[in-house]
Amino acid sequence: MINIKESESLNPLNHSCAHLMAQAVKHLYPDAKFWVGPVIEEGFYYDIDLGDKVLTEEDLPAIEREMKKLAKDGKRIVRREISKEEALDMFGNDPYKVDLIERMDPEDTVISCYSQGDFTDLCRGPHVESVKLLKNFKLLKVSGAYWKGDSNNKMLQRIYGVCFETPEDLEAHLQELEEAKQRDHRRIGKDLGIYMMSDLVGRGLPMYLPNGFILWNELENYIRNKELKRGYKHVQTPPLGNVELYKTSGHLDHYRESMFPIMEVEDEEYVLRPMNCPHHMVIYGNDIHSYRDLPLRIAEIARDCRYESSGSLKGIERVRTFCQNDSHIFCTPEQIEDEFKGVVDLILECYKELNITNYRFELSLRDPDDKVKYHQDDEMWNKAEDMLRQVLKDLKIDYVEKIGEAAFYGPKLDVQVKPAVGNEITLSTCQLDFCLPAKFDLTYVDSDGSKKTPVVLHRAVFGSIDRFIAYYLEETKGNLPTWLAPIQVEIIPVNNKYHLDYSKEIYELLVDNDIRVELDSREEKLGYKLRETQIKKIPYTVILGQNEVDNNTISYRVFGTEETITLEKNEFVEFIKNKIKNKER
Amino acid sequence: MINIKESESLNPLNHSCAHLMAQAVKHLYPDAKFWVGPVIEEGFYYDIDLGDKVLTEEDLPAIEREMKKLAKDGKRIVRREISKEEALDMFGNDPYKVDLIERMDPEDTVISCYSQGDFTDLCRGPHVESVKLLKNFKLLKVSGAYWKGDSNNKMLQRIYGVCFETPEDLEAHLQELEEAKQRDHRRIGKDLGIYMMSDLVGRGLPMYLPNGFILWNELENYIRNKELKRGYKHVQTPPLGNVELYKTSGHLDHYRESMFPIMEVEDEEYVLRPMNCPHHMVIYGNDIHSYRDLPLRIAEIARDCRYESSGSLKGIERVRTFCQNDSHIFCTPEQIEDEFKGVVDLILECYKELNITNYRFELSLRDPDDKVKYHQDDEMWNKAEDMLRQVLKDLKIDYVEKIGEAAFYGPKLDVQVKPAVGNEITLSTCQLDFCLPAKFDLTYVDSDGSKKTPVVLHRAVFGSIDRFIAYYLEETKGNLPTWLAPIQVEIIPVNNKYHLDYSKEIYELLVDNDIRVELDSREEKLGYKLRETQIKKIPYTVILGQNEVDNNTISYRVFGTEETITLEKNEFVEFIKNKIKNKER
Repeated sequence: MINIKESESLNPLNHSCAHLMAQAVKHLYPDAKFWVGPVIEEGFYYDIDLGDKVLTEEDLPAIEREMKKLAKDGKRIVRREISKEEALDMFGNDPYKVDLIERMDPEDTVISCYSQGDFTDLCRGPHVESVKLLKNFKLLKVSGAYWKGDSNNKMLQRIYGVCFETPEDLEAHLQELEEAKQRDHRRIGKDLGIYMMSDLVGRGLPMYLPNGFILWNELENYIRNKELKRGYKHVQTPPLGNVELYKTSGHLDHYRESMFPIMEVEDEEYVLRPMNCPHHMVIYGNDIHSYRDLPLRIAEIARDCRYESSGSLKGIERVRTFCQNDSHIFCTPEQIEDEFKGVVDLILECYKELNITNYRFELSLRDPDDKVKYHQDDEMWNKAEDMLRQVLKDLKIDYVEKIGEAAFYGPKLDVQVKPAVGNEITLSTCQLDFCLPAKFDLTYVDSDGSKKTPVVLHRAVFGSIDRFIAYYLEETKGNLPTWLAPIQVEIIPVNNKYHLDYSKEIYELLVDNDIRVELDSREEKLGYKLRETQIKKIPYTVILGQNEVDNNTISYRVFGTEETITLEKNEFVEFIKNKIKNKER
Repeated sequence: MINIKESESLNPLNHSCAHLMAQAVKHLYPDAKFWVGPVIEEGFYYDIDLGDKVLTEEDLPAIEREMKKLAKDGKRIVRREISKEEALDMFGNDPYKVDLIERMDPEDTVISCYSQGDFTDLCRGPHVESVKLLKNFKLLKVSGAYWKGDSNNKMLQRIYGVCFETPEDLEAHLQELEEAKQRDHRRIGKDLGIYMMSDLVGRGLPMYLPNGFILWNELENYIRNKELKRGYKHVQTPPLGNVELYKTSGHLDHYRESMFPIMEVEDEEYVLRPMNCPHHMVIYGNDIHSYRDLPLRIAEIARDCRYESSGSLKGIERVRTFCQNDSHIFCTPEQIEDEFKGVVDLILECYKELNITNYRFELSLRDPDDKVKYHQDDEMWNKAEDMLRQVLKDLKIDYVEKIGEAAFYGPKLDVQVKPAVGNEITLSTCQLDFCLPAKFDLTYVDSDGSKKTPVVLHRAVFGSIDRFIAYYLEETKGNLPTWLAPIQVEIIPVNNKYHLDYSKEIYELLVDNDIRVELDSREEKLGYKLRETQIKKIPYTVILGQNEVDNNTISYRVFGTEETITLEKNEFVEFIKNKIKNKER
């Protein structure tokens, strides 16, 4: 979706549209006072003091009509520069403007303001030339917003809108917005009963409901079995640690602001862990290792907890606790290439099976001129960076290089994807680390008997399971492949009186074949029940009436279609079992 | 193992033996000063100030020899009662005794002391008549102990010992002690690579190693599948919550001292959860429920965190974070009986399959006369208690009633087992709760349309998975049934030169059949490798030599035996698969 704030043409257009909206509001609500009206990624908004009046969505069409009228009048938008004194004179009876003027840089002696007809507001601009250009807009929503974001202040009314140059652009955008809303994981998550949030439990702390746990568990088993086949060894470590652990790793110095507060326990300090690398380092250090034992691939679906501001939380995509699909691969420098290749191969294998196609690779490298940000070992960096490039080339993978985006401790490869709403997220990652093992004094005995420090690869295929579920729900629009669907088959008897016994028989048959099935025997109309299967996006709906009872068959519909297909009952069992086995929809 | 403190005959015997030991120490270390020498469950100890001398186990035989000599002399043990002044006069130059005398109740004007030959100490008694009776004793260990348990005070030397009436009793006890040590899960856990602890990670925070995670995962899948078959629904909730949640549940008032410190996050307070009932209450409250939807059985392998003093921590049996095999069953009062029966039935089913036979049931009931400790609803209590009794009677279960041991909120059934070392623990539990649902305003719509409050059953079959593993390692002495053994088969080629290829072939064959197998191809002697399989308690060791190569067979030994059995290779695969399927050793 287009970023309006960053568009050279749409930015001023939306800025002017915000003023147009304010003018219209002033016409309809003469006591209205205005705070700020910035352009944002999604369009614009204005914060307005309407006394005790609380706007609802129903108030927006009248404002839009007034805006259309004003736009038709076609007033020019005029910039003026005035002194602070003039400004205070002009807006002296408006406490919001006075606040703005008084907080301006004392060096700025001149203030700009923009007028259109009977409306003037302080503004840096730029604006378009005339309100005539503001034809293709839409007011999107209204919400309360505390003045200056402080809950001790008055609640203002914030109206959001967006403006385009042509009606086609607007229409396309509104449709995109609607689609994004439809596939937003927060909506699908609710429809499918995947997770819930509760302020009483705490912000950013998702609770996975039975359907969500089924999905979670299938994904967890899926990736764990893939890892087992590739020689990973799974461990389980606690979600907290002694602060000394994070002093040793360096996280306490460099990651403190993303960590939860420290807890004092007896004469020690503990903290929820923001990442689990240190725990895995300690596990490696628990044994003596020979070069023959390497690579050692330690893996864990690991619970981590990070402090995120409440404003930045987003469904299960951005939370305060999550489980990483994490692994640390300890290897010799000579093994980096093979291990890196193995990780990329695993990522691609999973994406293929999960039908994930819309992603891009980013290779983050050091800036060789930056002698402060990066661990200083030019030979190591050069070798490693060339190696990673070579692997990507061998695997015929398109990627973008990001110079200066590597972590302090080594280069990394990220897989970036776009969620329904908001900025790109990292789905998978593989990061080389030349530093952490040394901090924990980790060694292996090399073939010549000397002690050496292993290299570590941090890698996550599903990133966090939470974030992966968020993304995957959006990517599939909730239409999950059968093996991942919490309910795979819904059985609806046409008439409970005559078809319930047979429905129960089919239900038991499917249960015995490990198919996740539900029987809807409520006293509701068939049409009502069918609509519900569509909201819940259940892959297969089985409808059983007299025909099916008489012929020992089943009739089913695939999600999203209205065609009914009839099969012998055991044929249907085999059909579903094959769908599950082959990971098909 | 016998509780010596509570034995009427062994208590005075051990008390006297403590004095005898002190007398012997005084002979060998004339500057020794004595603090206290109590009888404990395991025997006795004495805390002794030896100046800078630190005792080791090697010093104990000399003390034992001196004790034997003194016992042979056969001095009588004489009690005397003296005034405080006399006592201060007698022990005035011993700061430890002065401290004891001065802290005595001012009401006690008379103090007793016991003498035997040249040794006298303050003591309440009772003692045996003569040191002649102290023949069958053993000094067990020595350790440092701060005076009065305060690390700011001087470190004293604490010698532990035990005394019996006959040499046979002593011998039997020492053998029992040795066996307990052998089957202590802390020892087996290390031998089998189940878990590790690290002070850097934090006390009481176990880290499960690859072998431990296999065992954990098998148990988790096992109990989860059992629950699924019985209609439980699994959820996943975070290991922390807003403090408001624990105010609502009442835990903050009643359970504060077992909780970790509170963390301030923005303008809210969060805390690691000591139990997950409140999270499950919130999940129930997320939907409207009809009586038709009940019982609703919400289950989770749930991470909890509790503050335990570092002194009380014990392997993975008593830790600061653990995962409960928890469930909350929401039901109508009429459904309690069936649900309770179902839980007991599930517990017994699991015990039978896991071959757990050494346990006892405890039914904790209210004390009807205690009008403060218990939720006041006599009718509810009477009905519930009678119901639980009836279920246990129907199931022909022996149990002990504990009047006044019920929780505030309802009666409970516990299954108690004895670990290798220390006090009984609760392995499984089922607790009725009349109170918690109301605190969260939980309701269901009954058949008459009225809103009612559900009852909840808290239940755990494996208690916490951590504690269950601790117990099960001890119960099986680490000799796990094949389906739970981290490594099920170990393959050892007799000679790497000639038999490694065939060994690899057999290895692949077993891997393809989902058997957990390792191939030991190190350049070590056969005997050495075989000994290792016994330490690691691997159920089946396959030894492959020329005979096996020539005949396409395998030869195996069962753990703990030296008999070698030869089978056709596919026969062996079927044999192992059956062992796994049937959950046999």
